Amino acid sequence: INKEDAFHHHGIIANPNCATIIALMAMAPIHQLSPVCRMIVSTYQAVSGAGSQGIEELRKQEKASIEKGSIQCDVFPYPIVNNVIPMIGEIDAQGNSQEEKKLCHEGRKILHDPDLQVSCTCVRVPVERCHCESITFELKQEVSLSVMQEALKRAPGIIYDEKLDPTPIAWQDQDMVYVGRLRQDAYRKNCYTLWCCGDQLRKGAASNAIDILETVMQS
Amino acid sequence: INKEDAFHHHGIIANPNCATIIALMAMAPIHQLSPVCRMIVSTYQAVSGAGSQGIEELRKQEKASIEKGSIQCDVFPYPIVNNVIPMIGEIDAQGNSQEEKKLCHEGRKILHDPDLQVSCTCVRVPVERCHCESITFELKQEVSLSVMQEALKRAPGIIYDEKLDPTPIAWQDQDMVYVGRLRQDAYRKNCYTLWCCGDQLRKGAASNAIDILETVMQS
Repeated sequence: INKEDAFHHHGIIANPNCATIIALMAMAPIHQLSPVCRMIVSTYQAVSGAGSQGIEELRKQEKASIEKGSIQCDVFPYPIVNNVIPMIGEIDAQGNSQEEKKLCHEGRKILHDPDLQVSCTCVRVPVERCHCESITFELKQEVSLSVMQEALKRAPGIIYDEKLDPTPIAWQDQDMVYVGRLRQDAYRKNCYTLWCCGDQLRKGAASNAIDILETVMQS
Repeated sequence: INKEDAFHHHGIIANPNCATIIALMAMAPIHQLSPVCRMIVSTYQAVSGAGSQGIEELRKQEKASIEKGSIQCDVFPYPIVNNVIPMIGEIDAQGNSQEEKKLCHEGRKILHDPDLQVSCTCVRVPVERCHCESITFELKQEVSLSVMQEALKRAPGIIYDEKLDPTPIAWQDQDMVYVGRLRQDAYRKNCYTLWCCGDQLRKGAASNAIDILETVMQS
């Protein structure tokens, strides 16, 4: 949100969780129009979020599936080919997975808003690269769709365009986060839904760390 | 919800949309504990929702992907192998897809509640059979998790068990709808999240039509 963040450190600056970075790239410019009170997030996360062995496991299982061979699971708890897995990391006593807790806690820190309410369901999908997220959010005040669209178009690091291909393979291997499918809720005028999509190996990890470093070094 | 529904017809009984049936199988027993005011749904829908040619397209693209051949798209607007597509059917002026509008309208009819607020994002995933849905919902009153769990365990046509495999391949080719990942919202005590999963070729279509027929015939 604020470049100042990069200067308030004690020698170590944390790079957030990949799903959090991608969601927050879309939400930050909106939060500046009116505070985001609540986010309800469902993710569609790529296998490479589990490292290169995640990609390898998907490829091996694809091959086995076509050849009608047996599907071996080493990285993920269930087959990932021809499947989706709605649990990433351990599930706690409240029923939330590790990945879901990261998205809740880190979102509050990055937006500097301890009252931000995040509920989410994190799901692994058979995609090699690029996490996608369906986000329904509530703002403190209603903001007209056209004002929100303008803010998203102007925001650095994201591309908002309803006419572009909104799928993960279209946005892999680049630093820009795609935002689209922006809609106002039919019933609650301060609620909206959007779709975002970003390469979690680049903007969701390495590129974001470099962006932070460059900000600190340019000071 | 009510068997009486099957008798209020003028010669034709409509079988609802597949994603709607599966969501409502999970929501109906909860709605009886306290009215559902709002549902926020993100779907993970199988390619066979687009017919057998959907399965064929996925298999052809899987083969092409492994053999590094070119990916041809006839059924879906973008590749579906190694991808997810967040639009099912035409997008209207408000930005909602055909599939999303069905889920909104049919849910209200089935629960007999014209005030039910549904917002959703419908997404195609590279899975052959079984639609999954991440649903965050708001009830009129708070209901304790244990009461809700008991109601789900007793409800016909669904299996609620947090310990079972919650993935689509585990629930394909059967009539039962799986419900799991049930959690109470950390901030709003009358809000909850769950995950459901059902074979849209069986319970989401053919089996549901037979269930309706059997209800009418047993009268």
